[in-house]
Amino acid sequence: MIVYYNGTYMEESEVCFSPNDRGLLFADGVYEVIHSYRGSLFRPEEHLARLSRSLDALRIRFTEIDSIGRVCRELVARNDLASGEALLYLQITRGAYPRSHAFPPESVRPTVYVSPEEFQPRTAEAERGVGAVLASDTRWARCDVKSLSLLANVLALQEAKERGAWEALFVRDGLVIEGTRSNVAGVAGGRFVTPPESNYMLSGVTRLVVLELCRDLSIPAEERQISEAELFRFDELMLMGTGSEIIPITSVNERKIGSGAVGQLTRRLQRELRAATGAS
Amino acid sequence: MIVYYNGTYMEESEVCFSPNDRGLLFADGVYEVIHSYRGSLFRPEEHLARLSRSLDALRIRFTEIDSIGRVCRELVARNDLASGEALLYLQITRGAYPRSHAFPPESVRPTVYVSPEEFQPRTAEAERGVGAVLASDTRWARCDVKSLSLLANVLALQEAKERGAWEALFVRDGLVIEGTRSNVAGVAGGRFVTPPESNYMLSGVTRLVVLELCRDLSIPAEERQISEAELFRFDELMLMGTGSEIIPITSVNERKIGSGAVGQLTRRLQRELRAATGAS
Repeated sequence: MIVYYNGTYMEESEVCFSPNDRGLLFADGVYEVIHSYRGSLFRPEEHLARLSRSLDALRIRFTEIDSIGRVCRELVARNDLASGEALLYLQITRGAYPRSHAFPPESVRPTVYVSPEEFQPRTAEAERGVGAVLASDTRWARCDVKSLSLLANVLALQEAKERGAWEALFVRDGLVIEGTRSNVAGVAGGRFVTPPESNYMLSGVTRLVVLELCRDLSIPAEERQISEAELFRFDELMLMGTGSEIIPITSVNERKIGSGAVGQLTRRLQRELRAATGAS
Repeated sequence: MIVYYNGTYMEESEVCFSPNDRGLLFADGVYEVIHSYRGSLFRPEEHLARLSRSLDALRIRFTEIDSIGRVCRELVARNDLASGEALLYLQITRGAYPRSHAFPPESVRPTVYVSPEEFQPRTAEAERGVGAVLASDTRWARCDVKSLSLLANVLALQEAKERGAWEALFVRDGLVIEGTRSNVAGVAGGRFVTPPESNYMLSGVTRLVVLELCRDLSIPAEERQISEAELFRFDELMLMGTGSEIIPITSVNERKIGSGAVGQLTRRLQRELRAATGAS
């Protein structure tokens, strides 16, 4: 696979991160994942705007953000990924400098890395739905920044997998926040309900697109807090993410959600989103 | 500088971390810093025991921990660092594997990296004391694990530096926890007071050594919670860390602690610790 590293296109196997890269030493960096459908990036402006917000939050000075969309398209083309689906992983760290917590001198340039991978749609999960488990939200207080600080996500997802689930839903102070790599939404009496943005949640691009779809289709939608107790009373429950789009959740902690089957509004939003992406 | 990377001694400039290393992608790794005085490691057993606890907490399988002390000594020798002081940075990540949050297969081996640096004692700071600022503790709930998840520490320390301070003290729920790269202790009426171990604090080796010194010297010492208000009533305040040993804090948020001069117990503990390390 050809990737992009600090201005150069090269084989992934030739990329060499310094042991002093602050992404490695301190999780001092940010990332994005963009979905490409038949060679076309989905909502690149939203992803790059969020990347810009993440960089600003960490005060990483990166002035070439306008070039990133072009780099993504070039990687899709060079790797012959334009006929199907692909994910582009974008990562920018504060750069490499001998280890010291405080920021390095301004002359130190960020490390930029973009890597594509061919993506197979999660057809089985999207069709049948998945199980989720609840996990105590041990993450830091800036989950709104899409940073490399993902260790709590890793541990929660691993525990979910070992319990036979596909995703863990973080619960903080009795409120359901989001998944380890997805946002969450429920359906109650025909209304689409998803937790509001806050410093404890990442504002997902797919979540925003689904809220747009609800508005365009006159589906009642609310952004409001969801308690752990309310979660189990929803008629339908779903995950939203860049790679996986919309995945129905049919059980949480092995308790059925609604009838335990995939609900009608979930199905409708899956179709509408798939159409919006240009995938079908 | 010669470093150690996955079983091999090599020039630091030749070390090549994969872009797929989980330390970089997810902060999925742990580290230690050991202080070497005149070629002799200080308290290596305690550091390696803590490394082992950190690895266990993240379920990283690393079976060669007994070799790490020898690697550190070899690096001190190969880099001619045996005549003065040095710091050894040890880092173990869950290894390199294509990006996916859940753990990789067990066949993926951890990435092991050990890097030495010559260390100049913080003589000026130790002599005159430093200023600190208070910072809201935005870190995750497993600060007892010495992981690479250090972004909150970076941001808090940078803000402290910009405010002219040497360290930021994290405050969570009204309680003073620790610094961004040090533990904290106060002196009240001749008693040494330091916050107790918990999942919100890293159990520092220097902190434990100072508690041992207090016991051996019959200095009354308590491990108990310290409120933000109590902090300003202490007669003396100090930081404890592997590199910096004991650094007096003479002001917090520009308010004097005690008389604003370095206190007697702080001076005594500095001398005793320095003697215990073999440095003087």
